[in-house]
Amino acid sequence: MRKLADLTLLPPFDPPRGNVLAIGRNYQKHAEEGARALNTEVGPPTIFTKAITTITAPFADISIDPSVSTKIDWEVELGVVIGRRGANIKRQDALEHIFGYTVLNDVTARDIQNGWGGQWFKGKSLDGSCPIGPWVLTRDEVADVQALHLQLRINGAVKQDANSRDMIYPVDAIIEWLSIGMTLLPGMLIATGTPEGVGFARTPPEYLQPGDVMESEIDGIGTLRNTVVASPA
Amino acid sequence: MRKLADLTLLPPFDPPRGNVLAIGRNYQKHAEEGARALNTEVGPPTIFTKAITTITAPFADISIDPSVSTKIDWEVELGVVIGRRGANIKRQDALEHIFGYTVLNDVTARDIQNGWGGQWFKGKSLDGSCPIGPWVLTRDEVADVQALHLQLRINGAVKQDANSRDMIYPVDAIIEWLSIGMTLLPGMLIATGTPEGVGFARTPPEYLQPGDVMESEIDGIGTLRNTVVASPA
Repeated sequence: MRKLADLTLLPPFDPPRGNVLAIGRNYQKHAEEGARALNTEVGPPTIFTKAITTITAPFADISIDPSVSTKIDWEVELGVVIGRRGANIKRQDALEHIFGYTVLNDVTARDIQNGWGGQWFKGKSLDGSCPIGPWVLTRDEVADVQALHLQLRINGAVKQDANSRDMIYPVDAIIEWLSIGMTLLPGMLIATGTPEGVGFARTPPEYLQPGDVMESEIDGIGTLRNTVVASPA
Repeated sequence: MRKLADLTLLPPFDPPRGNVLAIGRNYQKHAEEGARALNTEVGPPTIFTKAITTITAPFADISIDPSVSTKIDWEVELGVVIGRRGANIKRQDALEHIFGYTVLNDVTARDIQNGWGGQWFKGKSLDGSCPIGPWVLTRDEVADVQALHLQLRINGAVKQDANSRDMIYPVDAIIEWLSIGMTLLPGMLIATGTPEGVGFARTPPEYLQPGDVMESEIDGIGTLRNTVVASPA
């Protein structure tokens, strides 16, 4: 019998259906640690995207190239996979448009994020900067998407430790906002935002280094494990 | 014999390969009319994306829904289609990564563009807000990509009238910047930025209204023709 540990898992879906749709500042304490303007549920959330070339396998190495960025940071997030096409989706119908849930790490080059005309896309889009998986749980397998414990560890030390109940925009609100005038297609992936504890906001700031082992875990879904390696010259 | 006018043209490629990669503020006079910080070629350009669901046919109607946006604006642009995979592409090699060129209209909801946490994605991503075509000219068919005349007309009146020689970042520089740490794949589409003459910067501001006929033309490539219609209730 083959064991899971003997297999090399690929990303749960390939090719990706458009860029990853990503929510910024969706946990109050993370917005505060970044000294950024706070979102409020009465106004629209912050939305950016990650390139399709960021998607990588749940246990893939994360290559960092100091000639590109010296400030690569972590962001554990709940990933939502769309299952049913729709636009202008009302909040009370939103969960029916979800196929399932996965774990996602929105790896970010902080020095690039804020330098490209204020748009975050490029700093969020380095190759292989979005490990996802290890699998997608179907919607019925998650009893309450707003009661999930998220944790990110670097070399075993806990860096992020939070619960999806603290989202400013819960998942149904995200889908309602995102789908205004914009059709969501089956297979699209939404990164729902990261909680507090990212590297750039720590004292002193911490960034990923070659050899670091990064674990991104959501209780009841699974754990990503990614080793940071120096990019080949 | 069938005539071109008897046919309904589709977008030149489908499905799109990831979101449209788009350059902001790439013509000095357009940056000035928007009272926005000017890009300079010594620093990185402004980069955002448009959702894959924005891609529409060269002669498609453009639906506007006042409950979503009342400030829909035009932006004629040169579209560049990638033909050869590559990352960290040097400027002198950049043109070899191009498959061809097309015309693109980066239709934009100005009231949404600036309201979503400062990220432009959502205001650039309404359904059907990126007509492209009518076809893709292969690279060898365009003698000098930096000497193309662009024009946008609303109901026959010229609104934008410029030349690609006035790009702050020429096409080869765009590819060099975009591909830093990020692989460009065949089929990816780059919107290279719009020149001056957009609606929001006019006195008084002008926005698209149902019945308007919008023509986006690049000499030697072709013309998009899109009629603005009120969205079905």
